[in-house]
Amino acid sequence: MPPEITINGDRLWESLMAMAEIGATAKGGVCRLAASEADKAGRELFIKWCVDAGCEIVADEIGNLFAKRAGEDTDALPVVMGSHLDSQPTGGKFDGVYGVLAGLEVIRSLNDAKLSTRAPVEVAVWMNEEGARFSPAMLGSGVFAGAFSLDYGLGRTDKDGVALKAALVQHELAGIAPVGRKLGAHFEAHIEQGPILEAEKKTIGVVTGVQGIVWFDVVIAGSECHAGPTPMEMRIDPVQKAASLLTQFFTLAREYAPHARVTVGEIHSHPSSRNTVPGKVQFSLDLRHPEPAILQTMHRKADAIVKKENLCGAPVSLEEIWHSPPVAFDENCITAVSNAAAKTGYPFKEMVSGAGHDSVYISRVAPTAMIFVPCKGGISHNEAESAEPHDLAAGCNVLLHAVLEYAGLCEI
Amino acid sequence: MPPEITINGDRLWESLMAMAEIGATAKGGVCRLAASEADKAGRELFIKWCVDAGCEIVADEIGNLFAKRAGEDTDALPVVMGSHLDSQPTGGKFDGVYGVLAGLEVIRSLNDAKLSTRAPVEVAVWMNEEGARFSPAMLGSGVFAGAFSLDYGLGRTDKDGVALKAALVQHELAGIAPVGRKLGAHFEAHIEQGPILEAEKKTIGVVTGVQGIVWFDVVIAGSECHAGPTPMEMRIDPVQKAASLLTQFFTLAREYAPHARVTVGEIHSHPSSRNTVPGKVQFSLDLRHPEPAILQTMHRKADAIVKKENLCGAPVSLEEIWHSPPVAFDENCITAVSNAAAKTGYPFKEMVSGAGHDSVYISRVAPTAMIFVPCKGGISHNEAESAEPHDLAAGCNVLLHAVLEYAGLCEI
Repeated sequence: MPPEITINGDRLWESLMAMAEIGATAKGGVCRLAASEADKAGRELFIKWCVDAGCEIVADEIGNLFAKRAGEDTDALPVVMGSHLDSQPTGGKFDGVYGVLAGLEVIRSLNDAKLSTRAPVEVAVWMNEEGARFSPAMLGSGVFAGAFSLDYGLGRTDKDGVALKAALVQHELAGIAPVGRKLGAHFEAHIEQGPILEAEKKTIGVVTGVQGIVWFDVVIAGSECHAGPTPMEMRIDPVQKAASLLTQFFTLAREYAPHARVTVGEIHSHPSSRNTVPGKVQFSLDLRHPEPAILQTMHRKADAIVKKENLCGAPVSLEEIWHSPPVAFDENCITAVSNAAAKTGYPFKEMVSGAGHDSVYISRVAPTAMIFVPCKGGISHNEAESAEPHDLAAGCNVLLHAVLEYAGLCEI
Repeated sequence: MPPEITINGDRLWESLMAMAEIGATAKGGVCRLAASEADKAGRELFIKWCVDAGCEIVADEIGNLFAKRAGEDTDALPVVMGSHLDSQPTGGKFDGVYGVLAGLEVIRSLNDAKLSTRAPVEVAVWMNEEGARFSPAMLGSGVFAGAFSLDYGLGRTDKDGVALKAALVQHELAGIAPVGRKLGAHFEAHIEQGPILEAEKKTIGVVTGVQGIVWFDVVIAGSECHAGPTPMEMRIDPVQKAASLLTQFFTLAREYAPHARVTVGEIHSHPSSRNTVPGKVQFSLDLRHPEPAILQTMHRKADAIVKKENLCGAPVSLEEIWHSPPVAFDENCITAVSNAAAKTGYPFKEMVSGAGHDSVYISRVAPTAMIFVPCKGGISHNEAESAEPHDLAAGCNVLLHAVLEYAGLCEI
């Protein structure tokens, strides 16, 4: 491979900024909900660019979109660069879009350099990654990977009761290609959505997997009584119990540092009156760890904490409401990304994704890895989401070289 | 005084049960928030009963309501039996209502016995005692006693931003009488809302004073971030800080046991999303002690805890929003209650109230004392609140005799 091959960072940036005008919000963000008018417009712009770059366009029945650049070997499985074009209602310019347009930029750069590859190279736009319009998230990639049936996916409805199927028909977003097929590899470039790369002054995150997540609802039943006359020792106080539980749950994060995450996003007392000991305190508990065994241990310890607290005072229940097992990406794909980062000379580090991505499902059916680039302050799912052009270009260069390692380069 | 004069316990009980139907909850309690539709309905029923009993009805500008039974001496200051009709959101059938309807029963019994008094006898319904809808508590009696200005009282808003003034206008609850005037004495009968009388098998609590109370708002400012990608050590997590603060605040109760009380009735996170570290946690803090010096020390220690916690992590503010110093009731009124209890032959004990009551403020402008009766398990501010008809009748008889000692009896 000629060492000088590199992507065009300015063109990538211009494409990102042009795409950000579609569904642009007043605060500088983007609202491009899945299978909406704006999503349709974004996909049309993307298709135009891909056709100009000589790609063949294919959509499948759930609305996943593929732009294919043919390879020399017609039997070779395609190397896919995928992410999503849909956004949160008050999303940013980079989440998802970056992985798609970085893929396009790789194809454009191969064209510029007049290089062909042994295996075909594709860009994938997965449908409804955010889950903001249709729940669950990562729906298009989930159906592609067989995690959900096609009927289940098409039947998901938004808050107005519109089914994904109807929205796809309305905007002519679905194709006739069956959902799911063999891929040679799947690479996803994405902003980190966390603060680690920025804090450690690394340009590239070589993503080795995705944290496992368990969600719980914690309910502590107290006995309502008056704040004044009731002696402390006669109270069944769910707030005192909550303080003890929270302290112990957060201790799990320290015990399994640095990768464990413990988050309580919601906590509420009922009835909410300042001179009444509450009859109930509820809180959410979100436990994460990249190692299945450790996540399981954290889960077991949370159970044990609750069991012990149930021996006296206000009774507690811990209910698991969702579980997403940890994902380990493909060793060879991870190595391809590491090699690409080393070759291009950017400072990089291996890391685990804390958030879910299309690659979580695609990794079940294809060798997969991800490439992270820094975003400002780690802020994402926010109109203030921001990333530096030189970091985005760096990630795209790493994507190019990782893809070429799999697709194999031939001069035209 | 004819020794046979006594109140009608059955009629008192029937009135309590009829009033409990207004705002009745499925779990057998009452929701009659101050200046609400239900409060209006409760007051209308009370007014009907008082008019039937020959009383004159007067409302003042803050919505305090007075039912007046004339005395022989038109210059004599009235002897008032006051409490409240508003309830907690999930309150019981007796808190407040008992003192009002016991007052009505005293008037009905005087009518039955065809007895007149030298001084007028009144029943007072103080506005917004609970503080559950409009903070602070004991607002109507507080304005009456000059603890708050009328403008301050009318300007208090509920959590939907509705001012008390607007709620009073909506339900036609305010009158034109100016707030505040001279009273001869104020007696308040109330369920204990604590477990002491029951535990010691006493029927009557002769209340000599009230614990001091300090109310605080605690606000912990965090920084919103994604529950997955953000390492624990980079978080500014207000829930972790809340756990530490709560643990330390509850320690104050043990340090100043057995009389200290520490209650957190409200705790809430914002925004409430299970996979986002909250940007803010707020909670209420209620500290109580009967000794002014110890309450002051508890306050100082709470300040010190917050000061220390502010040295690192999420910043905390502790704002004192209300302070009710310990109260000592009038010696002569206390003696009148003791005498009445002795005369009627019920087992009684002197005690300090753990809860605030309208008598706290009224005691600033009129000789005041209170009469407690047992409630089941000491449970109050709870739909399960319960009291025995014979105990309620006993307290009402004591109220009658204490009032007659002040109002002076004349046969009609």
